[in-house]
Amino acid sequence: MHPIESKVTSDDLVFYKEALAEAKKGLESHGIPIGAVLVHKGNIIGRGYNKRVQLKSPIRHGETDCFENAGRQKPEVYENSTLYTTLSPCAMCTGTAILYKIPRVVIGENTNFQGEEKLLKSRGVEVIVLNDLETTQMMKDFIDQNPILWNEDIGLSEG
Amino acid sequence: MHPIESKVTSDDLVFYKEALAEAKKGLESHGIPIGAVLVHKGNIIGRGYNKRVQLKSPIRHGETDCFENAGRQKPEVYENSTLYTTLSPCAMCTGTAILYKIPRVVIGENTNFQGEEKLLKSRGVEVIVLNDLETTQMMKDFIDQNPILWNEDIGLSEG
Repeated sequence: MHPIESKVTSDDLVFYKEALAEAKKGLESHGIPIGAVLVHKGNIIGRGYNKRVQLKSPIRHGETDCFENAGRQKPEVYENSTLYTTLSPCAMCTGTAILYKIPRVVIGENTNFQGEEKLLKSRGVEVIVLNDLETTQMMKDFIDQNPILWNEDIGLSEG
Repeated sequence: MHPIESKVTSDDLVFYKEALAEAKKGLESHGIPIGAVLVHKGNIIGRGYNKRVQLKSPIRHGETDCFENAGRQKPEVYENSTLYTTLSPCAMCTGTAILYKIPRVVIGENTNFQGEEKLLKSRGVEVIVLNDLETTQMMKDFIDQNPILWNEDIGLSEG
């Protein structure tokens, strides 16, 4: 068995489905389909999805929206939480996880976007990539259909 | 002359004062006194201050609030902007600057908090620290008077 795969629990798959459900809410509300949930000791304490379109926000990625919706938490809570996200996290969302010392990040896929997984690992964060096919296809379709919006979301200029 | 100091322009000092004014707005509204402005080709396109207290937000640091208030911008705009912030930026705000490829960050002080300046520099960002005395004293007084709130803002647990 692959050593990474063995770290995935059945609870992880349950919580991951919730992150994916958030991503689908984003898609249904004409936004970018990236979702996240924050789980503390078996309880979802925050959930969110990318709201660049819906709130005209450059800082509401799936993960940061999830943190925002979790509200103000004590540092100890973050230090015992797992962040589930449908896409490999960008520098902003990675930095947010590092700021709050999130020890574990479970990622749906990193085929469509390779975020800052190395940086997370360099700070001692456990990073697990599920390579979920449904998520990968959903994201691929979205990017194919919305390249300019997608590039805006990841700060990629046309030039 | 110190090589870093020589990179500071008179415009920088003008814009820095605006970031400091934002920090003071934070203090006056009973929040954490950290402010920022984003300047594109000589024009302030966003300004903000830490709103952890005011909006009960874990993601509205001075810098991220500034990005939020600047609204959705084209990648090319960020790539030609300078971020002014009163305090050395944390991992979240550093990650936001990296995501959007901000090429230059001017920091008021890093005595009270040493953020992710090394990470910024490692990504090619020009980092300038002004060591502004007024800012340093304001932040020191705030931290001395609000240690628990401050620790929450930087994700530092009591243990």
